[in-house]
Amino acid sequence: MDTKFLLGIGLAIVLVFCGAAVYTTFSKLPAASVKAEDQETLYQVSTIDALMQGVYDGVQPVGEMKKHGDFGIGTFDALDGEMIVIDGKVYQAKADGGVYAVMDNATTPFATVTHFNRDFSVSTGRPMNFSEFSTEMSARLPTQNMIYAVRMEGTFPSVKVRAIPAQQKPYPTLTEAAKNQSVYTYANTKGTVVGFYTPAFFKGLNVAGYHLHFISGDRRTGGHILDFTVPVNATVEYDVTPAFAMPLPTSGAFTGVDLSQDLSKELAKIES
Amino acid sequence: MDTKFLLGIGLAIVLVFCGAAVYTTFSKLPAASVKAEDQETLYQVSTIDALMQGVYDGVQPVGEMKKHGDFGIGTFDALDGEMIVIDGKVYQAKADGGVYAVMDNATTPFATVTHFNRDFSVSTGRPMNFSEFSTEMSARLPTQNMIYAVRMEGTFPSVKVRAIPAQQKPYPTLTEAAKNQSVYTYANTKGTVVGFYTPAFFKGLNVAGYHLHFISGDRRTGGHILDFTVPVNATVEYDVTPAFAMPLPTSGAFTGVDLSQDLSKELAKIES
Repeated sequence: MDTKFLLGIGLAIVLVFCGAAVYTTFSKLPAASVKAEDQETLYQVSTIDALMQGVYDGVQPVGEMKKHGDFGIGTFDALDGEMIVIDGKVYQAKADGGVYAVMDNATTPFATVTHFNRDFSVSTGRPMNFSEFSTEMSARLPTQNMIYAVRMEGTFPSVKVRAIPAQQKPYPTLTEAAKNQSVYTYANTKGTVVGFYTPAFFKGLNVAGYHLHFISGDRRTGGHILDFTVPVNATVEYDVTPAFAMPLPTSGAFTGVDLSQDLSKELAKIES
Repeated sequence: MDTKFLLGIGLAIVLVFCGAAVYTTFSKLPAASVKAEDQETLYQVSTIDALMQGVYDGVQPVGEMKKHGDFGIGTFDALDGEMIVIDGKVYQAKADGGVYAVMDNATTPFATVTHFNRDFSVSTGRPMNFSEFSTEMSARLPTQNMIYAVRMEGTFPSVKVRAIPAQQKPYPTLTEAAKNQSVYTYANTKGTVVGFYTPAFFKGLNVAGYHLHFISGDRRTGGHILDFTVPVNATVEYDVTPAFAMPLPTSGAFTGVDLSQDLSKELAKIES
């Protein structure tokens, strides 16, 4: 058998698996009716554009946020590091490179959480950097007009993460604050990618597309993923999350900031 | 006393009233913490951009939607007219100019509802058309970064409403469908304006700014407001609605349509 034949068989197997995954997902979902309270919900505190504009005061205690999910990402009061919520535990990846357990009375100015239950999974099939992952793993979703919680375990050939140090008032914009971010690159590191895919129409509310954080298996390193190389046969677990719930801050800096601008280009610059 | 002096006193009184209204609102709201389930929620089925792209199949029964609010606006399966929800009753303003009671098993492809409880009210103070109302009554809000349910009763010097007739498959875009809309103008008509103000960052999800429907006091005429003249001393009642809940359709046309474009200019053209 020649190489092309083998490649053809390989491709066919991949297509059948993808098809099966898609079928499994959508056959499990209710048909034409949608009920927010019966389905899984992406719970989001505030908006990404408020964070972009320097609204860093914590507005919700972590203990309250945890009622809405055991899995997610975000940041903390004063933009002090990157939040990773995994298996119901909340971690803070700080600019010093360390990861710390978070008390329930800590607060967040921006966070997204859900209760993670895998609906389907997709094998990456080949090594990919973050840009390739974003493009290819978006195209392979059953629909791009849906929210998905995304979880990927593995030993990553490389992971490049950042964490921003706590800011002082008057708060700078996120673009300014990110200039002082700490960046760490880890090789052959075992850990978990935690995050979300949100549709293009979440622009302004959230980071449209894939927004992923990382935490190592030993829970000692992590942060916001700027880039990574995924293992050849990494399995990306997806939780279809068709409901969205967002409380808006009713006081503080949120109410006074200009949220009418399109900040997507500035956001893209600091996200990867 | 001369005219300028009287105008000055009048202006001072208006400013004190506005200030009091703003104070009343925000002193009643929780300080730094936000809880979606404890506060009022704007519940939205699907997105305005999906409707713009011709996703008109009803995805939620009206009976289910009513659990989430007694007040709101939307449309019906096949884009058959304009929805007005007031005091817990759901009405359908159809292209024939009539208003009809709606059964719980009717379905909606797009709707926004909440439980209306007035938090504050603002007097318009002078006659305004829709464009003037939108600009001035946005500037007078306590913050433009908040969702408000908006209700205004009165005898309106003029109200110009539209209703779009039911569409046939394959569904045209909303821009195309609106070309066949029926437009009715009523003079000195008593009735209620029902709708919402959503912040600029709701672009793509909802009609950013004021999105208002009208229903007459006798519940016999109504529709989507293209223009109006508000009475001199109309009272606009606002319900601060800091939580947002949105179930996304998990099947049907929603999952296949392109929701990555900025359709705000096309939307503005058909909204007024």
